[in-house]
Amino acid sequence: MLIDGKHMRGVWVEDDGWSIGIIDQTRLPHAVKTLRLAALGDAAHAISSMQTRGAPAIGAVAAYGLCLALRTDPSDAALEQGYAALLATRPTAVNLKWGLDEIVAAVRNRPRGERVAAAYARAAAICEEDIANNEAIGRHGLAVIERAAAAKAPGEPVNVLTHCNAGWLATVDWGTATAPIYQAHRKGVPIHVWVDETRPRNQGASLTAWELRHQGVPHAVIADNTGGHLMQHGQVDLVITGADRVTAQGDVCNKIGTYLKALAARDTGVAFYAALPSSTIDFTLGDGIAEIPIEQRGSEEVATMTGRTADGRIETVTVVPDGSPVANYAFDVTPARLVTGIITERGVIAATRQGLAACFPERVRC
Amino acid sequence: MLIDGKHMRGVWVEDDGWSIGIIDQTRLPHAVKTLRLAALGDAAHAISSMQTRGAPAIGAVAAYGLCLALRTDPSDAALEQGYAALLATRPTAVNLKWGLDEIVAAVRNRPRGERVAAAYARAAAICEEDIANNEAIGRHGLAVIERAAAAKAPGEPVNVLTHCNAGWLATVDWGTATAPIYQAHRKGVPIHVWVDETRPRNQGASLTAWELRHQGVPHAVIADNTGGHLMQHGQVDLVITGADRVTAQGDVCNKIGTYLKALAARDTGVAFYAALPSSTIDFTLGDGIAEIPIEQRGSEEVATMTGRTADGRIETVTVVPDGSPVANYAFDVTPARLVTGIITERGVIAATRQGLAACFPERVRC
Repeated sequence: MLIDGKHMRGVWVEDDGWSIGIIDQTRLPHAVKTLRLAALGDAAHAISSMQTRGAPAIGAVAAYGLCLALRTDPSDAALEQGYAALLATRPTAVNLKWGLDEIVAAVRNRPRGERVAAAYARAAAICEEDIANNEAIGRHGLAVIERAAAAKAPGEPVNVLTHCNAGWLATVDWGTATAPIYQAHRKGVPIHVWVDETRPRNQGASLTAWELRHQGVPHAVIADNTGGHLMQHGQVDLVITGADRVTAQGDVCNKIGTYLKALAARDTGVAFYAALPSSTIDFTLGDGIAEIPIEQRGSEEVATMTGRTADGRIETVTVVPDGSPVANYAFDVTPARLVTGIITERGVIAATRQGLAACFPERVRC
Repeated sequence: MLIDGKHMRGVWVEDDGWSIGIIDQTRLPHAVKTLRLAALGDAAHAISSMQTRGAPAIGAVAAYGLCLALRTDPSDAALEQGYAALLATRPTAVNLKWGLDEIVAAVRNRPRGERVAAAYARAAAICEEDIANNEAIGRHGLAVIERAAAAKAPGEPVNVLTHCNAGWLATVDWGTATAPIYQAHRKGVPIHVWVDETRPRNQGASLTAWELRHQGVPHAVIADNTGGHLMQHGQVDLVITGADRVTAQGDVCNKIGTYLKALAARDTGVAFYAALPSSTIDFTLGDGIAEIPIEQRGSEEVATMTGRTADGRIETVTVVPDGSPVANYAFDVTPARLVTGIITERGVIAATRQGLAACFPERVRC
């Protein structure tokens, strides 16, 4: 997508043909800085420190991280060690493991001399598949937005609420939740996006709003507390979020707070969609609330806030009292019963075991 | 309540016998500063700038603000002008108008020479009534907490989630939502409080956590997005919030985001209580969602965050991208159907027209 009118991707191979480029998401929205990942440790750090984040982007960077490990040492031992190191960086998003497994499958039965090239080829394919998937998600989600637009007075914007960043920064390009929004905007469908600030880490305010502004999509940043009030007053037509993991029965694990928006949508008759590539679906799990491990992150993400002072300095300030403990759960699970539909590369699917199995029969365990 | 072991109230008359003292809530939690209000304009500014906030505290400061106006000029014209100026400071909390009406009623039929003394006497009585009401709210709410404690293993803390600050800072003393918590803690009932950060303005992190720490109550600050996840996992026994206005049918208007917590409580079988003095009940209104005016405040409350840097400076940082619009709704309305009970000075009441009317028959219009 566009940054100041120039097209960029979220993950790319540098001109040297092997090192990996990413946009440092911890510096946005106040500075656009790219990072060069040249070793396994760089990739692992980029994921764990959330320089790169978002389930599909994590999958792509993890895949390239294993490429970097194999470039140094193409042995089975190095492959296993790299796999373990990258898998340990984040516990919740299933795409991380998926991306690593794809690389392992691509290299396992090959001689050492062919492994690096095979791994890079598979990682590049993962990126191209991600873009194609997100384009397809956008196409299917566009139909949902167009139906909402048809129900409104001509020229009235469709109001979409989104939570966190499931934008192009969280993927290789297009984004998942944002792909339908960007396609609608390009097609001239009037659209306005309510952007949840998304505490902690503020990925909505820092990343989604920044993305939307660079694509020229009308939007407003709101506190996470605000969505229910807007829905009560008819100011939201659709909720579209991303997902970090979806279970076989359609439970949606996503950034903490998604569940609260789904509850408000149900209570007010607003449709709630999760948009995700099928690699996000974990067919090994059923009950998401019971079975998905929820990452707890450092207290500083809640206790502090980083931003820009009036005179342009980046400062981190503490916003809780000295001595007050903090708890920081990164994700929650929205039960399938609250989900209107799951927008995937194969279409909009009912959030049910039957719906998901019928659409992805090759993924279902017997 | 206590600040560093010393007892303070939220609003007081200074030693000079006429000027008014408050704690500057915009400086907490990093600095404890008191403010002296010596004129109508000081009181109006203290309310509109949220140096003082919380429905009961606003009512008390507004009442004293009218005293200060009458002290300068005890005429009917000055009374009306002061009334209008103070009423315009905040639109949502009904206690503001209530406090002003009480002073008007106390002085209207008196000669000018008696008005100042009568006004101060009524304002002082409002403060004493507030404390007595909050003590009674605490007593009735304590019974709710004790019932929750009885259902748990011995020594297991009762986990209470609260939103925003309905603490002693929001009142003259005790607080509303916090009164049951403080009374339970003093009585030795094991209790732990989940403190919603409460964006924008962070009154949970800045004020409630600070209050709880100074009273020695175990607590943890969480992002506003977190409560639903905690409730899904059995980590919340009760939600207790305050209220800025409650309608005759039991709809609860409170800090934005309260509705989302009430939805999660209903979805997970957790009890949801609002604690408030009866002056917060507006028997002239029925449907809170349709009828209560919701204040929209400045965008800077969402776009910026103020806190303390590592080296001790207070800095304000911008956390949204340049050029991204912001919307800032201050309150939302929780429909009565989601409210387990309303804790008032007269007991715990069903959130229904019948329940409220039966408990406050003298307030109901015929």
